[in-house]
Amino acid sequence: MNKFLVKKALENFFIEDIGERDISTSIFPDELVTTGSFIAKSDGIICGFPILIEAYKLFEEDVKVELFINEGRYVKSGTIIATVIGPIKVLLAAERVVLNLLQRMSGIATQTNIAVQTLDSSHSRVCDTRKTMPGLRIFDKYAVRCGGGFNHRSGLYDTVMLKDNHVAFAGSIKSAIEALRGTLGHTVKIEVETENIEQVIEAIDAKADIIMFDNATPNEVKEYCSLVPSTIITEASGGINLENISMYRDTGVDYISLGMLTHSVKAFDISFNIEGSFKRR
Amino acid sequence: MNKFLVKKALENFFIEDIGERDISTSIFPDELVTTGSFIAKSDGIICGFPILIEAYKLFEEDVKVELFINEGRYVKSGTIIATVIGPIKVLLAAERVVLNLLQRMSGIATQTNIAVQTLDSSHSRVCDTRKTMPGLRIFDKYAVRCGGGFNHRSGLYDTVMLKDNHVAFAGSIKSAIEALRGTLGHTVKIEVETENIEQVIEAIDAKADIIMFDNATPNEVKEYCSLVPSTIITEASGGINLENISMYRDTGVDYISLGMLTHSVKAFDISFNIEGSFKRR
Amino acid sequence: MNKFLVKKALENFFIEDIGERDISTSIFPDELVTTGSFIAKSDGIICGFPILIEAYKLFEEDVKVELFINEGRYVKSGTIIATVIGPIKVLLAAERVVLNLLQRMSGIATQTNIAVQTLDSSHSRVCDTRKTMPGLRIFDKYAVRCGGGFNHRSGLYDTVMLKDNHVAFAGSIKSAIEALRGTLGHTVKIEVETENIEQVIEAIDAKADIIMFDNATPNEVKEYCSLVPSTIITEASGGINLENISMYRDTGVDYISLGMLTHSVKAFDISFNIEGSFKRR
Amino acid sequence: MNKFLVKKALENFFIEDIGERDISTSIFPDELVTTGSFIAKSDGIICGFPILIEAYKLFEEDVKVELFINEGRYVKSGTIIATVIGPIKVLLAAERVVLNLLQRMSGIATQTNIAVQTLDSSHSRVCDTRKTMPGLRIFDKYAVRCGGGFNHRSGLYDTVMLKDNHVAFAGSIKSAIEALRGTLGHTVKIEVETENIEQVIEAIDAKADIIMFDNATPNEVKEYCSLVPSTIITEASGGINLENISMYRDTGVDYISLGMLTHSVKAFDISFNIEGSFKRR
Amino acid sequence: MNKFLVKKALENFFIEDIGERDISTSIFPDELVTTGSFIAKSDGIICGFPILIEAYKLFEEDVKVELFINEGRYVKSGTIIATVIGPIKVLLAAERVVLNLLQRMSGIATQTNIAVQTLDSSHSRVCDTRKTMPGLRIFDKYAVRCGGGFNHRSGLYDTVMLKDNHVAFAGSIKSAIEALRGTLGHTVKIEVETENIEQVIEAIDAKADIIMFDNATPNEVKEYCSLVPSTIITEASGGINLENISMYRDTGVDYISLGMLTHSVKAFDISFNIEGSFKRR
Amino acid sequence: MNKFLVKKALENFFIEDIGERDISTSIFPDELVTTGSFIAKSDGIICGFPILIEAYKLFEEDVKVELFINEGRYVKSGTIIATVIGPIKVLLAAERVVLNLLQRMSGIATQTNIAVQTLDSSHSRVCDTRKTMPGLRIFDKYAVRCGGGFNHRSGLYDTVMLKDNHVAFAGSIKSAIEALRGTLGHTVKIEVETENIEQVIEAIDAKADIIMFDNATPNEVKEYCSLVPSTIITEASGGINLENISMYRDTGVDYISLGMLTHSVKAFDISFNIEGSFKRR
Repeated sequence: MNKFLVKKALENFFIEDIGERDISTSIFPDELVTTGSFIAKSDGIICGFPILIEAYKLFEEDVKVELFINEGRYVKSGTIIATVIGPIKVLLAAERVVLNLLQRMSGIATQTNIAVQTLDSSHSRVCDTRKTMPGLRIFDKYAVRCGGGFNHRSGLYDTVMLKDNHVAFAGSIKSAIEALRGTLGHTVKIEVETENIEQVIEAIDAKADIIMFDNATPNEVKEYCSLVPSTIITEASGGINLENISMYRDTGVDYISLGMLTHSVKAFDISFNIEGSFKRR
Repeated sequence: MNKFLVKKALENFFIEDIGERDISTSIFPDELVTTGSFIAKSDGIICGFPILIEAYKLFEEDVKVELFINEGRYVKSGTIIATVIGPIKVLLAAERVVLNLLQRMSGIATQTNIAVQTLDSSHSRVCDTRKTMPGLRIFDKYAVRCGGGFNHRSGLYDTVMLKDNHVAFAGSIKSAIEALRGTLGHTVKIEVETENIEQVIEAIDAKADIIMFDNATPNEVKEYCSLVPSTIITEASGGINLENISMYRDTGVDYISLGMLTHSVKAFDISFNIEGSFKRR
Repeated sequence: MNKFLVKKALENFFIEDIGERDISTSIFPDELVTTGSFIAKSDGIICGFPILIEAYKLFEEDVKVELFINEGRYVKSGTIIATVIGPIKVLLAAERVVLNLLQRMSGIATQTNIAVQTLDSSHSRVCDTRKTMPGLRIFDKYAVRCGGGFNHRSGLYDTVMLKDNHVAFAGSIKSAIEALRGTLGHTVKIEVETENIEQVIEAIDAKADIIMFDNATPNEVKEYCSLVPSTIITEASGGINLENISMYRDTGVDYISLGMLTHSVKAFDISFNIEGSFKRR
Repeated sequence: MNKFLVKKALENFFIEDIGERDISTSIFPDELVTTGSFIAKSDGIICGFPILIEAYKLFEEDVKVELFINEGRYVKSGTIIATVIGPIKVLLAAERVVLNLLQRMSGIATQTNIAVQTLDSSHSRVCDTRKTMPGLRIFDKYAVRCGGGFNHRSGLYDTVMLKDNHVAFAGSIKSAIEALRGTLGHTVKIEVETENIEQVIEAIDAKADIIMFDNATPNEVKEYCSLVPSTIITEASGGINLENISMYRDTGVDYISLGMLTHSVKAFDISFNIEGSFKRR
Repeated sequence: MNKFLVKKALENFFIEDIGERDISTSIFPDELVTTGSFIAKSDGIICGFPILIEAYKLFEEDVKVELFINEGRYVKSGTIIATVIGPIKVLLAAERVVLNLLQRMSGIATQTNIAVQTLDSSHSRVCDTRKTMPGLRIFDKYAVRCGGGFNHRSGLYDTVMLKDNHVAFAGSIKSAIEALRGTLGHTVKIEVETENIEQVIEAIDAKADIIMFDNATPNEVKEYCSLVPSTIITEASGGINLENISMYRDTGVDYISLGMLTHSVKAFDISFNIEGSFKRR
Repeated sequence: MNKFLVKKALENFFIEDIGERDISTSIFPDELVTTGSFIAKSDGIICGFPILIEAYKLFEEDVKVELFINEGRYVKSGTIIATVIGPIKVLLAAERVVLNLLQRMSGIATQTNIAVQTLDSSHSRVCDTRKTMPGLRIFDKYAVRCGGGFNHRSGLYDTVMLKDNHVAFAGSIKSAIEALRGTLGHTVKIEVETENIEQVIEAIDAKADIIMFDNATPNEVKEYCSLVPSTIITEASGGINLENISMYRDTGVDYISLGMLTHSVKAFDISFNIEGSFKRR
């Protein structure tokens, strides 16, 4: 993640939560120092250490963060994943924003990992979509990578996705691709969304870079894949989730994209415990 | 929601998703106009119309948005909730951000509403927490209200929440409250988190404005509530969710706060369908 | 004060004053180091040290700020309140913004303190209003606290203030409060502005959290206060200033709010003297 | 005033005051329209109409603002200066920020005008300093112009001001001016602060563009001015205020700068009255 | 170009140039309306109409812009390309920023077009690089497209470019590509920079998406191209400019990238003439 | 250059180029450290070291930058001008933005220096205009100074420039100047653009601070200068460039302004070479 974007986002997040000031911690003197621990309260993939490191540094250069496991690793509930030593005012003011992000990112990483494990394929990869939370895309997509998934396009700017409307207007998949190839440079890939075998064949003929099978059954995906030459990448999308992903295991498709990885996230439970004892620095 | 914050957020969200430009829609001429419809794909509470209205206006003053139901109403899957008439370039460029927000907000409103219906209490209210997605708090809290829930404090700046650390440092709940009442103005309420009956009694004696029972069982909540005078508001919090909330129905507690309302959101499925026919304006 | 807001504000203030560059100090080499002293030129309360500390750090990590008195203390004219050691370019470029803020904040703290001393009440407290300078609210409200005053609500978002228009529309104070209690959460207090005894009684019946007596004479305030039960907080507001505040001493009112504390500020005179001798580092 | 800066500032000011939302006005339906009147409550110069016009437009294009007097004119207490017709929600949400600015700006314009009237000179002009409130400089300097005063430099970037430190380092006023003339372009003026007759003479010899007499008595100013050729502009500064400015009437000085115009502002009392009757649009 | 980015950029540009206010135009009353004409003063491609349209709208909704030629067309010196009707204050305040952008963009479009014409190839395309002016990339890349060129990657985020350092660290081109394919999704292309025939062959074997020949002579480019299969795109880069680009005409290379298109721009001369006559509106 | 503006600009530039992340450098581990060298690839003036120093610090406090020559000095092609030691990820991510700025700024400094050398006058100075690239004015104007040139006004806010439209409206140069002197303070200079001898004489009579001869031949400039008293500064402008500037050598004009210094910049070629060997820190 681009550190400049992370810092800017975190500053906005802290302003959102803290506002004018944390009125509850006004009870503590500035110099009171203590230790806080992040503890996993369920099993899964931990994700978000770059946030942990940047967040406290934004408050004070000398808050000490110690990490006990590696980013993207599976932990058991009860594991202490990190400790932070610094002014109790800082620890309490930062707590909620840090936890909100860590829990979302670890939640995404965990359910991505479940998707990967459930798919259990040496060939097909799990990938995300643009169904991320507005303002949080770099965090969401990073978390997908941590969980063993892959990123689909970042936004409307870096890959073409041709859907029914584009094709309808252009007249055919071929003419749509040609129109775009006539104006776009060589670094941009063109993906085509297809809904039936005729469209798949048309997309192959039109030399799409990526062919997506929209809302296709495992059998259809398998059939379509058998038609597509190896120079074109295939993707299954639409209605696939943790329950049915394993049915796509043997379809031979290259990528399976799941919107739910980022649009329906169950927070991964992490608690932050502050030690009872304080020191004055 | 403050319109200035909504506009600022939407502009940032569109920049995040569109980047330099939507390369796929470069295929369409500017003057091509069409109609798009938002259709509910599941049953629940629709939330997010202010976003719908502001979002398209940011692109072009004369995109027409028509709403077919009222904000916060329950809809059945298949219901057309709104239509948008405008340049197809605008409709496609705005689609993802608008849907991502609408689906989250409707998801929050829907599960809040389920909580309210399940609790089924004429006395106790369901409320949210600060476990919202960073950058999206005003949207998340608005959605909770749409679903029939109530908002807890907005951030660290508007209500005091005394937890074990504050009390440990101050020596007692009483001394913590007194210390804060000695510096804070009359518009700020002080809430105290309690973990057992002794703390509840101490908080009552200390004249807390709100007493929160942390991780208390329904029976404990009932017992605690019976001790608290009517001038003090009570709140149950911690580990309460859609599965067990009905067990708190007869506890007499004033508010029940659920972190899951906003930290673990299932997107409410909404599709956006663009008509096949185009007009030139 | 939230450090993120303070830093952001200071950066904007320095950009406003310095623009492209300080053309006058282009005469000095970068490495020329000297000492500057902040000296009180009148008697009163000094306020603004967090600004002093953050401001120079924003320029250079190693400018040394030494404080000789405590924030919020009363000083006599002539007192050296702080010294700064650093590049003369930094000292001169930062001077005006720092002084402008310090002088305003100390001016607010001083006149707040005069109000408190003049009121001379063990019961009634002096508080501010929303009549702060746009963009400077966190600084203005902090200064009021430093002077011994209390803060009224931060903005339109954290406390309800019902005025004649709200009541006129709702039909009565009671119905206005009920309408709001029906939608607002438990952390929000409702204050009602009253203009005569009938309204005070109506507000008491409606169980307002705070009752404000608008433009009431000391005698009226006293009479109204005698009617209000101790569970409701009272506030006198409107037309009260340093000249007449002492007349409210024995009214028994809980809070007296003064708009002039922040809308009509006399700068507290502070000079910044740079030593004649320079060193090269 | 640059409209882009005014809009940006107003948006920030409204976000500061309104926050997430105006909870008090949630009582009113969106379509309730009414009329509000701005009424002067003291005698003086009214200033701030560009704010009035921009502010409501930022909320809604079709709020109607009607002005009854001209910007910068003297009004008597009781004069209705403007009316606004629009949604009551908008009128109440905008009220405080608009009044805070108008009262400050009219306060500055009024006391500037008093300074000009008191000085009562056909030759000497009253001007401001950089002692404006951080973030509000364009508003403060505009108000000074409305009151009949003139603006000194905008910031550190547009005019050189040589003080004792610059001169001490350069060795002499002459060498300081020469050093700067050697690097600065022809659009920049150099002003020199002088404290005695020797320095005045040195500044004349060095061909300063402007010579400022710091903390000089009226007699000293008169004497110094008699020495300065007409091609050099003179300025008296330091310790001049509304009480003693008339003593400088016959000194022949070109400009008299007063820090108090903007650092110690008494708000000009303006009230905003909303009509009792509402319409639905 | 994303309209949100264009507006944001233009607002910043106008603030940079206008500052507090345009002091020269203070001479004109607000209601004075006139007509200004943009006239080409040399021959070439005109580019920048979206800026023209957005810029004036930002000042005032009702400034009328009329365009006389199409974006990206070749014009002769003397051609009136557009007229603007609006307040003379707006026309003069906007002039410089609008011209600075239009002249740069038309300059880029023109020299891109010269490159395309000079290359005169039905196969090879001219493209840009990341050597754009910081803050102006979307404008620079848009101008390249207007001139008949193509865009290379937008930034470090959307396409991989493997250079000697990456390869040195990974051990070989193959291992570098494999490492990246192991983590990057299917929408990202990998381009490899090669400096000799061995590297070209290695890149072919490693199945790079794009092979770039760095600083290769026309003969080398021709030789390398003959080795590369048609499924891999070729690019010549380094040291190619308007003087020598025609030597690459028959090399068969797919893309030729020129840094000078955007790093060394000769402004296209455009004048803005305001009519002598004014009207009051 | 104001450090706050430089930092803000650099952060935006890095966000523009890096976006979500540098996908190419994801191949390197964080702890891999190496050395990069900036090497001049042509002869000229090097400019931009403050950028070099700030840019890397924004990434990481402990990247070491070593400079081998002084800012604004003439270098021969092949000279190593600076080295940077730090993480290879940082070096590669920062490279393009740093080079793009350095090459532009050194290009401006170099062609400014050529103008100064070609003019070869002990009296006349070379200066810039407002024809800088939007968003880059402080960098462009700084580079002009580094090359031995002088800065004209910074923007529309700091110096008046009266052109034909202003004069036409006011009736005469004299009345235009008088109107402005009647409202503007003493720190602002008024420059008048003249097109013939009558206007020059009128501007002299009107006591303009600066008289500009627009599009005048060297002979005309010489003639006009002979009329202007030494208290008024003269400037030749319009159509002057590196080819014809020497013809103005003996005209006696004070300043010669060249738009091309900043509107038509040839990038100064600088390469950035990263050492083959890496260390782990």
